[in-house]
Amino acid sequence: MRAAFGLVGGDLRQVYLAKALMAGGQSVLVSCLEGAAAGLAQASLKQLSSECQVILLPLPATRDGLTLNAPFAQEAVPLDHRFARLFSGKQVFGGMMEKLMASSPLWQAADCRDYYLREELVAGNAYLTAEDAVGLAIAEYPGGLGGSHCLVTGYGRIGKALCGMLRGLGAGVSCSARKAEDLTCIRASGCQALRYHELGRPFDVIFNTVPAPVLGEQALSAQAQDTLIIELASPPGGVDLEAAGRHSVRVLPAPSLPGKMSPKASGELIKEAVYNILAEG
Amino acid sequence: MRAAFGLVGGDLRQVYLAKALMAGGQSVLVSCLEGAAAGLAQASLKQLSSECQVILLPLPATRDGLTLNAPFAQEAVPLDHRFARLFSGKQVFGGMMEKLMASSPLWQAADCRDYYLREELVAGNAYLTAEDAVGLAIAEYPGGLGGSHCLVTGYGRIGKALCGMLRGLGAGVSCSARKAEDLTCIRASGCQALRYHELGRPFDVIFNTVPAPVLGEQALSAQAQDTLIIELASPPGGVDLEAAGRHSVRVLPAPSLPGKMSPKASGELIKEAVYNILAEG
Amino acid sequence: MRAAFGLVGGDLRQVYLAKALMAGGQSVLVSCLEGAAAGLAQASLKQLSSECQVILLPLPATRDGLTLNAPFAQEAVPLDHRFARLFSGKQVFGGMMEKLMASSPLWQAADCRDYYLREELVAGNAYLTAEDAVGLAIAEYPGGLGGSHCLVTGYGRIGKALCGMLRGLGAGVSCSARKAEDLTCIRASGCQALRYHELGRPFDVIFNTVPAPVLGEQALSAQAQDTLIIELASPPGGVDLEAAGRHSVRVLPAPSLPGKMSPKASGELIKEAVYNILAEG
Amino acid sequence: MRAAFGLVGGDLRQVYLAKALMAGGQSVLVSCLEGAAAGLAQASLKQLSSECQVILLPLPATRDGLTLNAPFAQEAVPLDHRFARLFSGKQVFGGMMEKLMASSPLWQAADCRDYYLREELVAGNAYLTAEDAVGLAIAEYPGGLGGSHCLVTGYGRIGKALCGMLRGLGAGVSCSARKAEDLTCIRASGCQALRYHELGRPFDVIFNTVPAPVLGEQALSAQAQDTLIIELASPPGGVDLEAAGRHSVRVLPAPSLPGKMSPKASGELIKEAVYNILAEG
Repeated sequence: MRAAFGLVGGDLRQVYLAKALMAGGQSVLVSCLEGAAAGLAQASLKQLSSECQVILLPLPATRDGLTLNAPFAQEAVPLDHRFARLFSGKQVFGGMMEKLMASSPLWQAADCRDYYLREELVAGNAYLTAEDAVGLAIAEYPGGLGGSHCLVTGYGRIGKALCGMLRGLGAGVSCSARKAEDLTCIRASGCQALRYHELGRPFDVIFNTVPAPVLGEQALSAQAQDTLIIELASPPGGVDLEAAGRHSVRVLPAPSLPGKMSPKASGELIKEAVYNILAEG
Repeated sequence: MRAAFGLVGGDLRQVYLAKALMAGGQSVLVSCLEGAAAGLAQASLKQLSSECQVILLPLPATRDGLTLNAPFAQEAVPLDHRFARLFSGKQVFGGMMEKLMASSPLWQAADCRDYYLREELVAGNAYLTAEDAVGLAIAEYPGGLGGSHCLVTGYGRIGKALCGMLRGLGAGVSCSARKAEDLTCIRASGCQALRYHELGRPFDVIFNTVPAPVLGEQALSAQAQDTLIIELASPPGGVDLEAAGRHSVRVLPAPSLPGKMSPKASGELIKEAVYNILAEG
Repeated sequence: MRAAFGLVGGDLRQVYLAKALMAGGQSVLVSCLEGAAAGLAQASLKQLSSECQVILLPLPATRDGLTLNAPFAQEAVPLDHRFARLFSGKQVFGGMMEKLMASSPLWQAADCRDYYLREELVAGNAYLTAEDAVGLAIAEYPGGLGGSHCLVTGYGRIGKALCGMLRGLGAGVSCSARKAEDLTCIRASGCQALRYHELGRPFDVIFNTVPAPVLGEQALSAQAQDTLIIELASPPGGVDLEAAGRHSVRVLPAPSLPGKMSPKASGELIKEAVYNILAEG
Repeated sequence: MRAAFGLVGGDLRQVYLAKALMAGGQSVLVSCLEGAAAGLAQASLKQLSSECQVILLPLPATRDGLTLNAPFAQEAVPLDHRFARLFSGKQVFGGMMEKLMASSPLWQAADCRDYYLREELVAGNAYLTAEDAVGLAIAEYPGGLGGSHCLVTGYGRIGKALCGMLRGLGAGVSCSARKAEDLTCIRASGCQALRYHELGRPFDVIFNTVPAPVLGEQALSAQAQDTLIIELASPPGGVDLEAAGRHSVRVLPAPSLPGKMSPKASGELIKEAVYNILAEG
């Protein structure tokens, strides 16, 4: 067993995960990362699987269920029995593992864990998502956020983080929620609490975190020409795109921001989740 | 039925609750509040119970289980059958109602609700507690919080609110927690995340929110002479008082702050909880 | 020369100044501090003046021009020639030194410096004043600051610090100013910018920092019963007290807060100013 | 006189300035903005100069002293006598007007004002610059700012705004300054105060606001591989680029951010400055 961790596939998060492990004194082999592996010890899949006891797959492990999520690999990595058999008896960590595990019954022979089920990873991702969304808003909104009036829909992890960051930048913040408890917290932290039927008023930037149709005709028809909507929820998101088009409101789809805008921080969150899983046994 | 709400007993929160209801257009009668009832319509218990359909008892309804919590009443109000019988068939709202309801089987004839079980009230109270603790620290700590280094133990509702407020005042903040998720959130929001065995370092002000012995010999022996500990957890709290004495660390017990320092805000939170219960039927 | 610094008179700030100097390895003698000198090396005035080269007088050095500002002295310390002569040839630092120096021509024989003219001391005091005012508001206002609407009059050092801290606690903040530049900065930092004729609207807490009549009939008549005004400007302040009385608005005079609420931080600021003066020669 | 304001040349700020004026009910003609004039009333230079009393030139009015700053003009606009003569007797507002006014003595016949000398415009620009720099850092730094450690060099307008915003996003912030007063304010607002010889320690993101060589060998050699420096000072800036190259530290030049990233906010600040000049006569 030459290397502690074998990383297979993935995007820049996987590269930074490798570096974070190495910075912590771990030995690391990577495979299927050819296009971004400068400074990392590369190995064939076979070699890696024979030398490493802990295998780290990307987040998500696969998008289509047919090939590994490996945008930097020289060639596509099919999720067949041969691939699964490589990791028999290994500890295999990856993100959103269902589709991968459905690709071959041989995955049953591995000790597979989904690190994306870890609360600390989900929580850390929410802060990164909020920060990246703020960065996007600064870049794309032609006005300033300081002194502007922003709307955040939803007061989950991302919504909460957004409210705090936007206020920290000097924005006035309204936030919509359903639960009485959330409305109380929104108010107490200096934001304006709105219910979903109260969104028919103008905002400078709107951040949607709700995966349900919350921004429809009423809200969209009230927006000015420069209003920017940043859609953070997964498709189909929370914005009535047809109504947005009719009222010329710009909607910027912004899915999976941390992987793109904060790959180093994302990789480090994965490292920590993996360590925590290993520590808990 | 002359008045919508009948308020019985309680402290200044109850007075502000009455005013908040009246400001919202409601008719209100009060009883057992003689010492603080200026501007409120007073009635005898009998009159109030016959005229009002919704009865609002204080938070807590009783402390000793024997008498109503009524510090402003002219005389003690015993929790006997006679008292309970007055509210037969009424909607009775109060905080921490168990002891009161145990005082007489006749309470079964009333529709009793504990508003302190409402999440929006608990959440709002946590913000008030955090703010009041900050106010106490400003008043009692001879240094300044801006530029100081504070410790918050625990990352529950109060701990979270404290971290944000202290940072908002310019303090450096460390926060101790057990859960990996909490440690991630603490770090992401600009505080230093500590585990409980890492508290043996000096802080200027320490806010304890944990009702378990987390501040013992190790932590207390590391504190300087001016360090102030604000104990927010219910007795016996989280501080080893004997060790604190030995190391001359000042511990300020600070239970139930909102009732004392923010009675108006507390009363308004109760009003909202009551309204929400009524709205939900 | 046995001791580096001789401290004469003063309040708790002077005590903490002594401790801060000692913590930095300096030898210190104190005099005219009998009531608060536990743990400090006391000396008679004569002894102190013969043994110390640098004399630290309080802030202010005198209030009445006749006696030293020495609330903890066993007896009053008259500012006569005899007192002045003690410090002939010494470096004498104090705050607001004019009146003291006018008390005897013999002060010309000392190298007197006013540390309260140092910008770093004035700046640090402004932050402390703002923080202490916030602490006072939390203690005295029966509502909560989080979610409240506060007014800060004036956008000088104290006003700026107040705006930031109040927002950091979750308050909505309006700030009044005259200069276009200030109005721009107020807006950009997330506060509402008001001109002085626009104060006729209700606020929860008002912090006056302007030593000119800015809160008159128009503003005061718009306030609710629970509104609290914290008067930070020196008498006569900025509030029309007669109108405040007429409209039952509570005005809390709050002069010189840091000396009372943050004596340790104040003492440390004085230490730093003294060090800076000494370093600059 | 058909139109109140005639806008000549400029970038998107000028477009948003036109829109802001029109939103305020003003009539506006534009010229030399062909590439971005959708929705605006265009006119020839001659027509515009004859119909408008107040002429608004861009910020800066010219870069090279030879042609108007007019990136959206169909063709270059030479700063010759003919151009200057057009505005004889007019009120002409522009930013950084020296070079333009040096281009022809005929500008003496116009009432020229430099709106970029207005404090409210400079102050507003500083907030925008800080915000845009934060947006750039979020986009370009592969880690997250929340929980990171940032350095801001300089505590002028931009440095101050940066410190506040970065803290508001959850970053730990160090700020370097020379003046004792600034060091005090930095500390009091929760940042770490550094002197310039203390920069030899690692940071995640460094924002340079100082137009003097403050980031040299010592500071640069201490940085990690992922450290990002955002250079906000005008060339040659404050970073020793050669040393940065030697230590593989990425330096991102970021001059004049508001014009590029916040043209709407910039245009509105110009509008306000122009209005204030007109109001003051």
